[in-house]
Amino acid sequence: MTRIPPDALIDFCTQVFSAAGVPAEVGRTVSDSLVYADLRGVESHGVLRMEIYLRRASEGMVDPQAAISIVQDGGATALVDGGNNFGAHVGRKALELGFARAAQHGIAGIGVRRSNHFGTAAYFAEAAAREGFGAIVVSNASQTMPPHGGLRPFIGTNPFALAFPTDNGVPFMLDMATSQVARGKIIAAAKRGEAIPAGWAIDAAGRPTTDAQAGLDGAVLPLGGAKGSGLSMGIDILSGVLTGAGFGPGVRNMYENWREPQDVGHFFILVDIARFAPLQLFTSRFAEYAALLKGEPRAAGFDEILYAGEYEHRLAEKRRTEGLDLPAAVVSDLEELGRRFGVPWPDERPADAAA
Amino acid sequence: MTRIPPDALIDFCTQVFSAAGVPAEVGRTVSDSLVYADLRGVESHGVLRMEIYLRRASEGMVDPQAAISIVQDGGATALVDGGNNFGAHVGRKALELGFARAAQHGIAGIGVRRSNHFGTAAYFAEAAAREGFGAIVVSNASQTMPPHGGLRPFIGTNPFALAFPTDNGVPFMLDMATSQVARGKIIAAAKRGEAIPAGWAIDAAGRPTTDAQAGLDGAVLPLGGAKGSGLSMGIDILSGVLTGAGFGPGVRNMYENWREPQDVGHFFILVDIARFAPLQLFTSRFAEYAALLKGEPRAAGFDEILYAGEYEHRLAEKRRTEGLDLPAAVVSDLEELGRRFGVPWPDERPADAAA
Ligand SMILES: NC(=O)c1ccc[n+]([C@@H]2O[C@H](COP(=O)([O-])OP(=O)(O)OC[C@H]3O[C@@H](n4cnc5c(N)ncnc54)[C@H](O)[C@@H]3O)[C@@H](O)[C@H]2O)c1
Ligand SMILES: NC(=O)c1ccc[n+]([C@@H]2O[C@H](COP(=O)([O-])OP(=O)(O)OC[C@H]3O[C@@H](n4cnc5c(N)ncnc54)[C@H](O)[C@@H]3O)[C@@H](O)[C@H]2O)c1
Repeated sequence: MTRIPPDALIDFCTQVFSAAGVPAEVGRTVSDSLVYADLRGVESHGVLRMEIYLRRASEGMVDPQAAISIVQDGGATALVDGGNNFGAHVGRKALELGFARAAQHGIAGIGVRRSNHFGTAAYFAEAAAREGFGAIVVSNASQTMPPHGGLRPFIGTNPFALAFPTDNGVPFMLDMATSQVARGKIIAAAKRGEAIPAGWAIDAAGRPTTDAQAGLDGAVLPLGGAKGSGLSMGIDILSGVLTGAGFGPGVRNMYENWREPQDVGHFFILVDIARFAPLQLFTSRFAEYAALLKGEPRAAGFDEILYAGEYEHRLAEKRRTEGLDLPAAVVSDLEELGRRFGVPWPDERPADAAA
Repeated sequence: MTRIPPDALIDFCTQVFSAAGVPAEVGRTVSDSLVYADLRGVESHGVLRMEIYLRRASEGMVDPQAAISIVQDGGATALVDGGNNFGAHVGRKALELGFARAAQHGIAGIGVRRSNHFGTAAYFAEAAAREGFGAIVVSNASQTMPPHGGLRPFIGTNPFALAFPTDNGVPFMLDMATSQVARGKIIAAAKRGEAIPAGWAIDAAGRPTTDAQAGLDGAVLPLGGAKGSGLSMGIDILSGVLTGAGFGPGVRNMYENWREPQDVGHFFILVDIARFAPLQLFTSRFAEYAALLKGEPRAAGFDEILYAGEYEHRLAEKRRTEGLDLPAAVVSDLEELGRRFGVPWPDERPADAAA
């Protein structure tokens, strides 16, 4: 493990993007989003994606120069064409448009097509909550999960986030894949040589399995069967069918398809809290709700009952102060990228530059 | 089992409500919503609720005469006060307001407070899809489910529905409780003397259990643990914290609390499809998506891969044609209500009146 200050890591990634020809604003947003995911313990959507993102761009599968345009404008609604730019950048621009429209109309629905993998949905949902909005953030993703009753991947683990502002600096933020569990949990079980519970995965032949390694060779299953399957499809409809982005097999796998852009779609719904209740009244009611929750008797093994997003927020705060621990494999990949693009790895800089 | 034409059942329920002093429009909507649930196989939210609904009204816990008012109007957003009228009626009025607002602004967010149990969320979501809207329909409910890490009921099995129009008459309609399974499935397992899978329920002491009877004495668990728990809380925030309705313990149990109204809250988000794509283009893309889904290889035990809402729609069509089979216990309760309010049970009418 190498401990690194998060800001130094954001700077490093931004400089790598810049050296690779990515415009400064685009590179900074993508870097910020990746490090944000690492800070929150969502390492699967963190800086380990640098390499694939850069490769998509260098192969012409992502266009970091692309302008983002509004193709249909209805005031409270807008359809945005991401021009095949990086997902975090496209998403951020669409979100900012949503802020303006929701402030004006009280609610906004922004659809996005021709985008790419946008990382952790929390990145957008938290920004919205900090602006005083209730937010629903969804995106489709390439096929990794069978539908309920299917044998092989057809839908993505399409993320769903729902966030609200609070008065304690810790937004309520549900941010989840529509799979029963992240693949990472199956990898962990396989490493420990443990079985996985029924309902987590199927094997390569599409049969339900409790063998972790067989599950890795197969696919993760939807959250609770038909419910997660329906939710993933519903997100695909909002993000893809409605916006004109890809859906189902039309969302291409960024690791496997080197002929076509991903054509990911997103959808953002922003609700101006103040149209329903003064923000302070809303947040004081939420504080009451959270206090009641925390006063509940706890199940064995729980020191505290948390609301969604609390754990990740605390982890991020700790890591912002103490630094971020990156596994050796991730660091050596980043160092390699640094060498390729002539950007020194922060460790090698004088201490004050990295502070 | 007694087979009855659904329209005759709606008429019977409407007449009972009317005899109980419920205004005709209110009684008809509530009756329609209950029979709609029975048609779709959601018997838990069907006519077996007649008795409790009428009892709430006669005890002054629901006010069927109450006017419904808009307490804050932001154009694309509105906050509706249900005046403690029946949930299906309040929900229907709020939904119709949403239709007008979404047609005008492209998207609408309607919050509702001071309502009651509104039955199956599909009743509203399907109506919205039939009007050409994409719809999210949520409601909070009284405490029946522990939060993730909790020992006893604190949140409701708060329903979440997401619906879209299609060109084949069968809307895409995810409509789900935020519990892992409905209590009905645990009742069924208990009757068969079978164990239930881990993750379905806790016993009365709050311990995880696979004993169906112990689960019935305890509580159902959230869908997938933290995910369903977070989703249920998020729905409570939208429906209650945001609108000023009850939340957590503030949503009262309609079977147990005879001192206070339920103070249920709902939230409706309606998206005008046409602001993003011509409706025909949207539905033709969806038809392509559904065809791809149905062409997928199937897991053992599946004759067909269904999208959300298909099964329930087919069942409703069949029952509309062939009639609705009601269990003897439900029929005898309804007959008793009929006797009390002087409304003849349809079976006893001449055949042509019940046709
Ligand atoms: N862009 C994409 O294509 C894509 C696809 C899938 C997932 N993702 C992202 O992957 C990430 C991981 O998703 P995941 O489903 O594995 O997350 P997870 O299962 O770790 O957490 C899901 C939710 O449950 C909450 N939670 C977890 N434990 C809790 C506890 N003990 N008490 C209360 N709440 C608790 C979390 O705060 C979070 O909101 C998300 O950031 C998601 O946006 C992105
Ligand atoms: N008003 C309230 O307080 C309240 C509270 C909870 C639930 N409810 C209602 O209870 C009802 C039951 O909810 P539930 O979660 O038990 O429903 P469920 O588990 O039977 O179905 C959930 C969803 O999965 C879909 N589905 C099921 N099997 C499928 C398959 N084989 N293939 C594809 N899709 C499939 C269904 O179409 C549905 O959309 C809903 O109508 C809900 O609105 C109401």
